[in-house]
Amino acid sequence: MFENAEKTELSSLGEFGFIELIRGAFPLKLEQNIVGIGDDAAVIKPEEGKNILISTDTFVENVHFDIMYTPLKHLGYKTVVASVSDICAMNGKAHSVLISVSFSSKYTLEALEELFEGVRLACDKYSVDLVGGDTTTISKGLVVSVTVVGSANSEQIAKRSGANSGDLLCVTGDIGGAYMGLQLLEREKRVFLEHPEMQPDLQNHDYIVGRQLKPEARIDVVKWLNDSNIIPTSMIDISDGLASETLHLSKESDVAFAVHEEKLPVDQDTYNMAVEFGIDPTTAAMNGGEDFELLFTVDQKHYEELRNHPDITIIGYAREKSMKNQMISKQGNMYDLVAQGWKHF
Amino acid sequence: MFENAEKTELSSLGEFGFIELIRGAFPLKLEQNIVGIGDDAAVIKPEEGKNILISTDTFVENVHFDIMYTPLKHLGYKTVVASVSDICAMNGKAHSVLISVSFSSKYTLEALEELFEGVRLACDKYSVDLVGGDTTTISKGLVVSVTVVGSANSEQIAKRSGANSGDLLCVTGDIGGAYMGLQLLEREKRVFLEHPEMQPDLQNHDYIVGRQLKPEARIDVVKWLNDSNIIPTSMIDISDGLASETLHLSKESDVAFAVHEEKLPVDQDTYNMAVEFGIDPTTAAMNGGEDFELLFTVDQKHYEELRNHPDITIIGYAREKSMKNQMISKQGNMYDLVAQGWKHF
Repeated sequence: MFENAEKTELSSLGEFGFIELIRGAFPLKLEQNIVGIGDDAAVIKPEEGKNILISTDTFVENVHFDIMYTPLKHLGYKTVVASVSDICAMNGKAHSVLISVSFSSKYTLEALEELFEGVRLACDKYSVDLVGGDTTTISKGLVVSVTVVGSANSEQIAKRSGANSGDLLCVTGDIGGAYMGLQLLEREKRVFLEHPEMQPDLQNHDYIVGRQLKPEARIDVVKWLNDSNIIPTSMIDISDGLASETLHLSKESDVAFAVHEEKLPVDQDTYNMAVEFGIDPTTAAMNGGEDFELLFTVDQKHYEELRNHPDITIIGYAREKSMKNQMISKQGNMYDLVAQGWKHF
Repeated sequence: MFENAEKTELSSLGEFGFIELIRGAFPLKLEQNIVGIGDDAAVIKPEEGKNILISTDTFVENVHFDIMYTPLKHLGYKTVVASVSDICAMNGKAHSVLISVSFSSKYTLEALEELFEGVRLACDKYSVDLVGGDTTTISKGLVVSVTVVGSANSEQIAKRSGANSGDLLCVTGDIGGAYMGLQLLEREKRVFLEHPEMQPDLQNHDYIVGRQLKPEARIDVVKWLNDSNIIPTSMIDISDGLASETLHLSKESDVAFAVHEEKLPVDQDTYNMAVEFGIDPTTAAMNGGEDFELLFTVDQKHYEELRNHPDITIIGYAREKSMKNQMISKQGNMYDLVAQGWKHF
């Protein structure tokens, strides 16, 4: 991506030199993006009749990621994926990102190039252009803020509000994997810190480690929904955990949800690792974050189409608000869904 | 703005509680902004036939601001102003902002409320809605990232490129004031740290202190340009200093500029403080940043209209690229314009 491949202090390049480097590496590809990096603002031409969707997310070292086991290329990739996922959660299509990076002096030019190489891979994968951003120093650590811009027809937009009593509650892919991947990486980090001569034991856990370090956004499911003329009545992406996101849909839509434990899609590797850690796999599935799967409601008339989709699982349904948000266990017991707080507060 | 007025740990409120507080304090007012805080993305309805302008800026404690002399309300105000100024610099009108705040545990709920009170004041003043953002903790300091969204007709957009040889080079307001305000605040901070019993001597310097702590964006000039059917051939806002911004216009427009020292608009307070500090007032004007004035080029046919505008000064002109970017001193000597590097690298 970049020509320079040595250990280079960023000060030797300067802010404008660095911006020029990024600008050269990210030519605009989409017709929506008219002006990108190098002006006071990016210029985007809205698609005829569509609304603009925009969201911003900040990722802080040692809060959202640990440089010890997060390659910067993966970090760059993940920050874009998490942002694109927000546009998916509105049933829209992302087309532009802006990235602000604040970095301490421990980060060399090559480190930032690696970060932006991950950004570029995600931009290519998800067909979005990098159209702007900001770079600044900070006394300690690394902070990456990503703003994503997308679009959707107004009648197609899926908000968090809009679920109706009787709607089916669906989730894409499988859940809890990113959380168990994180547990594994954290364990191996502790082992390494105590016994630096030992190699981390990540063998046979590619799936959950990948879920944590290299998640993907469900543009495929959004495309399928659109192609199938199915508009979710409400939708959210799973960044804080299924329980927390379900409660968001409940609050904004003014309904309650029943979730069936036996329906929760949990991968075998996630399940095994949870058992190994002494964690209830259902807890990992309900409260583990960062899977970036979609949680949505649809009218019951779409039952057959959804039931036959290999990557969508119907896990419950919406009901009157006066009923509680509950999980129905495999044994038929009811448990109230509990909101996950802000862990890093 | 907020009802709670005590010293409150943010952990007692939680992420979602804090977001609800902000959401309640920032109802959407503009028709463009359809969905704001509280969903996966904001929804903006583009104005018929207009393009979207979008820019992002990050402000880091002890790099861009010093909490010792920057009230958080001013900081919140300034971050929005600086962002709105980027949209002005494209000759557009801002209508939405998204704000990401990363804060360490030293920041209480009340501190963040003060920050957002400043954001609200700027939103009211500049008629923009807060439509989204993110909040997260960080180990040290405060980082504020602002994304601003605006719009303009495509034929009205002023990029950095577009200046032609012979165009007039104009600047709004006066320059160097924010820089001299910063020098004064830094001096008084040093005095205070050495002699805590002494009061800071900011008397009679409201103007330059205000330029540093509470700058404004030139929406008035953008409106006048539009009302007068004058479209700048190129434009940029002055955040890094007149010399640096002139070089940006030069590079992107492929022309060179001649700047007349005697034309530089410098306020008397700025001038006096520069003399007091032993700084050449011209240096303050050419290299001082953060004035958020507009620097732009226009065709010579608009000479009379511009000459008569009380807040616009014609300071030079564009010429062939083969000539250098130079300042012509009051004595008639030529000095090459020098780029200001990235001071905080």
